[in-house]
Amino acid sequence: MEPLHWWGSIALTALEGLATAAFAISGIIEATRKRMDVVGVGVVAFLTAFGGGTLRDLLLDQRPFFWVREQYALGGVFILCLIAVVFMRQRHIAITERMIEWPDAIGLGLFCASGVHQAHLLGMPPLVSLIMGVVTAVFGGVLRDMVCNEIPATLRNHRPYAICALAGALAYLLLAALDAPAWLAVGACAVLATSLRAFAILRNWSLPVWRL
Amino acid sequence: MEPLHWWGSIALTALEGLATAAFAISGIIEATRKRMDVVGVGVVAFLTAFGGGTLRDLLLDQRPFFWVREQYALGGVFILCLIAVVFMRQRHIAITERMIEWPDAIGLGLFCASGVHQAHLLGMPPLVSLIMGVVTAVFGGVLRDMVCNEIPATLRNHRPYAICALAGALAYLLLAALDAPAWLAVGACAVLATSLRAFAILRNWSLPVWRL
Amino acid sequence: MEPLHWWGSIALTALEGLATAAFAISGIIEATRKRMDVVGVGVVAFLTAFGGGTLRDLLLDQRPFFWVREQYALGGVFILCLIAVVFMRQRHIAITERMIEWPDAIGLGLFCASGVHQAHLLGMPPLVSLIMGVVTAVFGGVLRDMVCNEIPATLRNHRPYAICALAGALAYLLLAALDAPAWLAVGACAVLATSLRAFAILRNWSLPVWRL
Repeated sequence: MEPLHWWGSIALTALEGLATAAFAISGIIEATRKRMDVVGVGVVAFLTAFGGGTLRDLLLDQRPFFWVREQYALGGVFILCLIAVVFMRQRHIAITERMIEWPDAIGLGLFCASGVHQAHLLGMPPLVSLIMGVVTAVFGGVLRDMVCNEIPATLRNHRPYAICALAGALAYLLLAALDAPAWLAVGACAVLATSLRAFAILRNWSLPVWRL
Repeated sequence: MEPLHWWGSIALTALEGLATAAFAISGIIEATRKRMDVVGVGVVAFLTAFGGGTLRDLLLDQRPFFWVREQYALGGVFILCLIAVVFMRQRHIAITERMIEWPDAIGLGLFCASGVHQAHLLGMPPLVSLIMGVVTAVFGGVLRDMVCNEIPATLRNHRPYAICALAGALAYLLLAALDAPAWLAVGACAVLATSLRAFAILRNWSLPVWRL
Repeated sequence: MEPLHWWGSIALTALEGLATAAFAISGIIEATRKRMDVVGVGVVAFLTAFGGGTLRDLLLDQRPFFWVREQYALGGVFILCLIAVVFMRQRHIAITERMIEWPDAIGLGLFCASGVHQAHLLGMPPLVSLIMGVVTAVFGGVLRDMVCNEIPATLRNHRPYAICALAGALAYLLLAALDAPAWLAVGACAVLATSLRAFAILRNWSLPVWRL
């Protein structure tokens, strides 16, 4: 598979920006629920937004990091934090646990696509690309929960999460093996992972506990 | 010291495979005790199995990671998870805290040997090799406990653990300084660390609390 | 800005040694309060002392790590652990939560300066240098608290902490933009961050909770 066309990589950058914003919002919400101070909320927002992508770049040995290459993302998250305060204060929105789930689901799909796509372009074997997709998608949220001193929701709450990313990454690899164009594989991966997660939330799907 | 002969590096690969399996099992057991769902158990198994080796490769700047170089390990841990379920379900084995300790002790020795050996081959100074041995041995278990939201057992439970790895790594460096063949140094390190840990468990050795 | 003169880089090395020692002490105190065993205290001391600098070198892709380049630091922390026991036992010092704060404040300023300075010398854009300064300053303490199974004090306790590092890093960048000599920028950054933190402790400044 050749790299994306220029409009494809612009689209990918836009998607990555969106995913970053989605995770940043989920970090803001979670930190607010823990009654952290202003700086703490900012730190958790940054960790959640950039954790997954940084780990991806670190494991794939890609420098500079995407947040060095495209600094607008750093500034963007900062501005997002400000907007979030003003907006939510005006509307008096009650912060519930469920509110994290929607931005989180979108970020899940987008980061999964970016992880598996980048690993695939670097010529990683399929099994490794698969894992990079899942790791990129999941790590931001895991970091958020670890810093907030909880068992990561991903691992605990019996709702499909990492497995949605796995399905998305599998779809990407399948399409890549069939020589589908990059934009199709990337798109299918993101849409599949996000919509599986959305269904899981709406229909209350639950994974079996691991009983031994 | 020259690198291992071909049969030596096959033996090392086999040992690393064993260590990975041992840590994966300890992760499966711990996650099951925390009543995680199926995916959570898998994730904790992977983190515990590959955490120490990945940190070793990251700190020593060794790419590709050993789980990229030798993908059988990724597949192996996956199959191990499946076998673990079937086997333990059939036998109705009760999961106790002590059951982690045996695979964990074996993994401790083997990863310690792989860490100190790799650092030594790269020409790191002895003090750094020592630390790489301990870090490689200990980090998988620390990550497992951090994800499960506990103070790492290593640091808390007053049983010698990291110090066994330290003794093993010291033995390696001593033998390396005496120009012993690599297989002897690697073997001595693994056996010493694991058997010290085993004695510590069996005899209930305990470290003094740090009272100030 | 050109690199520091030889006496400047000796001064920087000395400062980094001091910062490492300061964080190591804060790690020893925290681990002791958690009643960890001897090895646990040592591990937390090492994590706190070297965590921030290692993350800095990892993110900036600087090898070898500073603790490989300058091994005296590793030995130094080890000796410090020993001295701490003897000294504190003799004086029967009661360990209070506040005792961490002073070495921690000094380490904060010094590591912040080393992070922003190194990123700036590597030609990173200002926003990235800023973040590297804050990350280097804050990460050791965050790691300490995560291993001790607490929400990092930085994020939770409503006292300015990361924001002091931010102010220091801003001062550095401002002076660098004005072509001030390196020693002045480094010094101003460290002094500003540490003294802001000290005032925050003494005057009980507190950040607003993030209320939405």
